[in-house]
Amino acid sequence: MQKQQTNLSAETDQQSRPGAPRLILASSSPARKKLLEDAGLTFSVMVSDVDEEAALAQAQEEAYAAGLGQITPAQTAQLLAKAKARAVAALPEASGALVLGCDSVFELDGQPYGKPGSADKALERITAMSGRSGQLHTGHWLVDTRPGSVQAAEASSLRTASVHFDQFSPQEAAAYVATGEPLWVAGSFTLDGFGAAFIKGIEGEYHTVVGLSVHALRGMLAELGLSITDLWKTSH
Amino acid sequence: MQKQQTNLSAETDQQSRPGAPRLILASSSPARKKLLEDAGLTFSVMVSDVDEEAALAQAQEEAYAAGLGQITPAQTAQLLAKAKARAVAALPEASGALVLGCDSVFELDGQPYGKPGSADKALERITAMSGRSGQLHTGHWLVDTRPGSVQAAEASSLRTASVHFDQFSPQEAAAYVATGEPLWVAGSFTLDGFGAAFIKGIEGEYHTVVGLSVHALRGMLAELGLSITDLWKTSH
Repeated sequence: MQKQQTNLSAETDQQSRPGAPRLILASSSPARKKLLEDAGLTFSVMVSDVDEEAALAQAQEEAYAAGLGQITPAQTAQLLAKAKARAVAALPEASGALVLGCDSVFELDGQPYGKPGSADKALERITAMSGRSGQLHTGHWLVDTRPGSVQAAEASSLRTASVHFDQFSPQEAAAYVATGEPLWVAGSFTLDGFGAAFIKGIEGEYHTVVGLSVHALRGMLAELGLSITDLWKTSH
Repeated sequence: MQKQQTNLSAETDQQSRPGAPRLILASSSPARKKLLEDAGLTFSVMVSDVDEEAALAQAQEEAYAAGLGQITPAQTAQLLAKAKARAVAALPEASGALVLGCDSVFELDGQPYGKPGSADKALERITAMSGRSGQLHTGHWLVDTRPGSVQAAEASSLRTASVHFDQFSPQEAAAYVATGEPLWVAGSFTLDGFGAAFIKGIEGEYHTVVGLSVHALRGMLAELGLSITDLWKTSH
């Protein structure tokens, strides 16, 4: 897992509704940004340094101390979503906003798979996935820093979807890796890109597989007394 | 069902691989176009006049004559995909290309639902769908007009996905209709837009629900002796 760069950027091309709360996506993933845009939401992107390895190591230590054993891939997704959201929520620039953190972990045979990072590793993993099924876990953590909101009001949601891969030939696997697309995504595959050709189907939510469930966001907003329709941009 | 306008347009912003077959999408749907673009395919869009009502009436007559009874929503999707693909394949401009026709029909309680076309009708249907599940049928028909290909080589694929809707409030339903988005889509809902917030999950393919299964296209191309990777653009 790699450290994320500090990166502050504000979207200005979207028109928000008057009086609508401000939403910040605490993730640098282009797929999550695109997904929120497609779903018609007004938001900005703000990413903060999170030492993911340190966060997980501390959580694992606490889990062992509590007699909970090894942290699962699903718990890992949720823990990192929380770490990302809280890191951005602590920034002065995020004051008064809703901050959404997300993290996705792919699970095959009980093992977690993150971004492969190299072509060799991606090819190896894709070959192992051919004709099989895995789970995509996406953790969501929403921090409410609006004035007047309950101190540290937070909501969270963990979503899991099963992904069924078709069998693919060595030529197809090599061509897919050559696109570069699978190298930097959890589980070495994309549902929203070239990889679409190789997915037989899913059980669960498309958006969970891509990395951010809009349905989960609607539920978390409702827990905080908000409607997702208030965050819709006025023109699509 | 409405007649479609004749509309010829060629995409020029995508780079195709040398020697790759030319793919034409015989559909005016922006969602299908976006989906193929996201999946990294090189293609152009060409739409021809199809009298959908006449095509269905004739098919229904033949079905009755053959003792098959009422045409199902799934059969309707497949018949219209065929009609669209063949109409474009017959145009001189499509000569030498692969022509893909698609059509989607939403089924709830055994009844087919097309585009609502008005806000009142959309609201009525959305209210009826709250908390329930329906099926989205997408028919695919691929016509191969390349020189040297078998006379009238064709491949087809029918895909069905179940869609589970969350319950939504009258306020949410009204806000969704006010976006205008559900008025012109099969079944009055979008998975790739504002509607994402209200879908609990699907069983099947995301792409089937949006209106074009890239996985089905890969299978049809394989039937014609082609690999989908040959249609991938060289840069994403």
